[in-house]
Amino acid sequence: MDLAAELTSLLGPDAMRTGDAIGPYLTDSTEMQGLVGRADAVVAPADVDAVRNVVAWCYERGVPIVPRGGGTGFSGGAVPVDGGLVLSLERLDRVLSFEPELWRMQVEAGVRTATIHRTARGSGLLFPPDPGAGEQSMIGGNIACNAGGPHSFKYGVTGAWVTGIEAVVAEGRLIRVGGPLRKDVAGYDLRSLLVGSEGTLGVVVGAWLRLLPAPAAAIPVAAAYADEQAGVAALERVYAFGLVPATLEYLDEGAVDATRGAFPGGLPEEARFLVVAEADGTIEGASALAAELAEAFADGAVMVRTMQSPAEVAALWRWRGGVTFGVEAQMGGKMSEDIAVPFDRLGEAIAMAREVGRAHGVRACSWGHAGDGNLHATFMIDRASPDQITSAAEAASDLFARTLELGGTVSGEHGLGWVKRGQFDVQFGPAEAALQRSIKALFDPKGLFNPGKKIPPAPAS
Amino acid sequence: MDLAAELTSLLGPDAMRTGDAIGPYLTDSTEMQGLVGRADAVVAPADVDAVRNVVAWCYERGVPIVPRGGGTGFSGGAVPVDGGLVLSLERLDRVLSFEPELWRMQVEAGVRTATIHRTARGSGLLFPPDPGAGEQSMIGGNIACNAGGPHSFKYGVTGAWVTGIEAVVAEGRLIRVGGPLRKDVAGYDLRSLLVGSEGTLGVVVGAWLRLLPAPAAAIPVAAAYADEQAGVAALERVYAFGLVPATLEYLDEGAVDATRGAFPGGLPEEARFLVVAEADGTIEGASALAAELAEAFADGAVMVRTMQSPAEVAALWRWRGGVTFGVEAQMGGKMSEDIAVPFDRLGEAIAMAREVGRAHGVRACSWGHAGDGNLHATFMIDRASPDQITSAAEAASDLFARTLELGGTVSGEHGLGWVKRGQFDVQFGPAEAALQRSIKALFDPKGLFNPGKKIPPAPAS
Repeated sequence: MDLAAELTSLLGPDAMRTGDAIGPYLTDSTEMQGLVGRADAVVAPADVDAVRNVVAWCYERGVPIVPRGGGTGFSGGAVPVDGGLVLSLERLDRVLSFEPELWRMQVEAGVRTATIHRTARGSGLLFPPDPGAGEQSMIGGNIACNAGGPHSFKYGVTGAWVTGIEAVVAEGRLIRVGGPLRKDVAGYDLRSLLVGSEGTLGVVVGAWLRLLPAPAAAIPVAAAYADEQAGVAALERVYAFGLVPATLEYLDEGAVDATRGAFPGGLPEEARFLVVAEADGTIEGASALAAELAEAFADGAVMVRTMQSPAEVAALWRWRGGVTFGVEAQMGGKMSEDIAVPFDRLGEAIAMAREVGRAHGVRACSWGHAGDGNLHATFMIDRASPDQITSAAEAASDLFARTLELGGTVSGEHGLGWVKRGQFDVQFGPAEAALQRSIKALFDPKGLFNPGKKIPPAPAS
Repeated sequence: MDLAAELTSLLGPDAMRTGDAIGPYLTDSTEMQGLVGRADAVVAPADVDAVRNVVAWCYERGVPIVPRGGGTGFSGGAVPVDGGLVLSLERLDRVLSFEPELWRMQVEAGVRTATIHRTARGSGLLFPPDPGAGEQSMIGGNIACNAGGPHSFKYGVTGAWVTGIEAVVAEGRLIRVGGPLRKDVAGYDLRSLLVGSEGTLGVVVGAWLRLLPAPAAAIPVAAAYADEQAGVAALERVYAFGLVPATLEYLDEGAVDATRGAFPGGLPEEARFLVVAEADGTIEGASALAAELAEAFADGAVMVRTMQSPAEVAALWRWRGGVTFGVEAQMGGKMSEDIAVPFDRLGEAIAMAREVGRAHGVRACSWGHAGDGNLHATFMIDRASPDQITSAAEAASDLFARTLELGGTVSGEHGLGWVKRGQFDVQFGPAEAALQRSIKALFDPKGLFNPGKKIPPAPAS
């Protein structure tokens, strides 16, 4: 019996993706860098038991398993680079329970991030993590990458809102760590180990989420500067003044230029650097904080704009969500990283990203989550040009080295996936790398969960 | 050469604790249950290098290492139950850096929790975790237990405020996970694995802490009820109304009785259940929230009191800090647990704790962090009576079993340590217990770090 026939008999015909339907499962946002995988089979099991069965089946036969959520990642984490089985969680799409009066929700891994946001909002609650592409991305993928987003500045990343996880691990065993509990120190924190593990330790199939009453008001304050130094100084004043907005974002000159026309209400011509904070809380509290932010931003600004109406606010976040596409549109493609540095090195990191691009002859820009020191340092490329792809990859390699010199990390919220796996042994010294590898081996003795991703094989010594 | 002579030559005479000076290192808050250990030696190394040397020395010779902070734990985690070396972190007491304009601090493990609070406050910042005994407890111990406290309801437990850890692991190797970074998903989350590991994976020697601008105002609102049902209903209304106080505490009848006389401003005679929330934020924001809390508490209350003056607020938290001692004073001793349940099971858990005490003939009461479903279920004992200690231990065993039936955990913030190690294999099924044990073996192949604590030897199969 061949692979497809065996899987069909195991999972039923509805679970099989074949023919042209396979294409979308072979790529993610790294497609524009030329990364397209190949799969021996693509399956979408109907429920947790089916996931257990297929994982047990793969584990017995030594078939690699590439877990897949919405496929919106920037690091090739869900791409089957070298065959094996793509295990899509798309059919595990049920909200298992939603208890608004208890501020919690239990979901399957394939529930879309936007569905969680909307469900919570409908009852006056907030699920704070807001990585991009919410309509496509799935909570299982958000957990696998410990995804962030603008609102992580005040509220923290995905892991901070996950109180429990169900995962299918080696041999098809189902483990449950945590649950609808807000505190638990009985064992080691396996929950946090699974969060951000990028499918390399097992398959996240469900989660318990913690929610928060939604703030009554959210008031963005944007400010533009004619030069980067003035913009970075404005960001530093938010910290120095002790203000805690929900978001603290920036765009450098290249990112401003790529999205200038779409900024709600327009930007002054001399704008070369943009900062966007959002004050949230009660109506009075958010208004007061917005006024303080406007004051902190004022020095050296060519524009300070406070947005009050719901339409303005929606337009702003729509624009912000489109930044990545605006930058991409400049040359048809981009290679976008997610380095993070201590906040006091932010200005240096922004300048460094641009310098690195210049040194390699590729246009570079950056934007991102300034308050968290998290930069989407980006190299713009013509995706049809192999030379540009090579130059951008070389620039990225330099970028990572210089990020580490600044005391930073090569990944703040995307994960290492496939495209950054080479950075693993650079960022971690031998002792910590060995420890990390031994955790991988513990969960996945046969090395079948998302092989080669995040943690590459140990270098020859 | 004998042990003491070897250690003296390794660490210098100042590091040696001998003779009568050893006594305090052999116990923690479980002393009143009769737990007193014995140590082959007690050392207090002067710095991280000395910790590395002594760990390497122990690891070579197979000498067990019991790391020790302030010794304020409730689970015997820092007690040398069966000899070995007590490694006190008391001399690693330096604040290595404090950068108020960057909301961060780097500390050694032996810095007292209260020192961190005071240092932050002096610059208008807040380190939110507030476990009891802040003047004695050390940040390293707080990290080892992932300690909580009242303010964890809004702000989360210790781990949420630790962005990096330095730890000395097997063979005296120093590892650094994280740092002054707010986001990092490059590797597996070893930081969270060390948080709450109770000294069983290595010795935490330092940490990077994240701070927050301190709220301008904090306004406690207390309410008393003549019966428990009315009190629990009031707590549930806080969730249902979508209010987010910084703390949401309760005391049941036994705890109220033990501390009634000391409550600032007194309590009505009919008070049998007490709730205490604290509204914090801006002056206006905290006032508005305090009014909403008072409204949520009103139904069925025999008292609702909002505390405005700094003197009242300080008196309230002084009283709250004394609850544990007030309960202890009832009969001279107590066995105090830290079970946690989903919030919707809180009322059942409070009643259950009392019933369990009655069934075993010991006086029982509970209080704690209601909003987090975290109960200090407590059995009051005459510490001179072996019978009472036995009955209380049996009651605790029942309490744990019934907590698991409620979907809870046997430890929300104290850890399992020595006294709750028997619960490990009850709470975790065989698959997860095996995974946890293999993580222990990975970090500590010789089983020398705090042996027998948290994770006991595997049961014979």
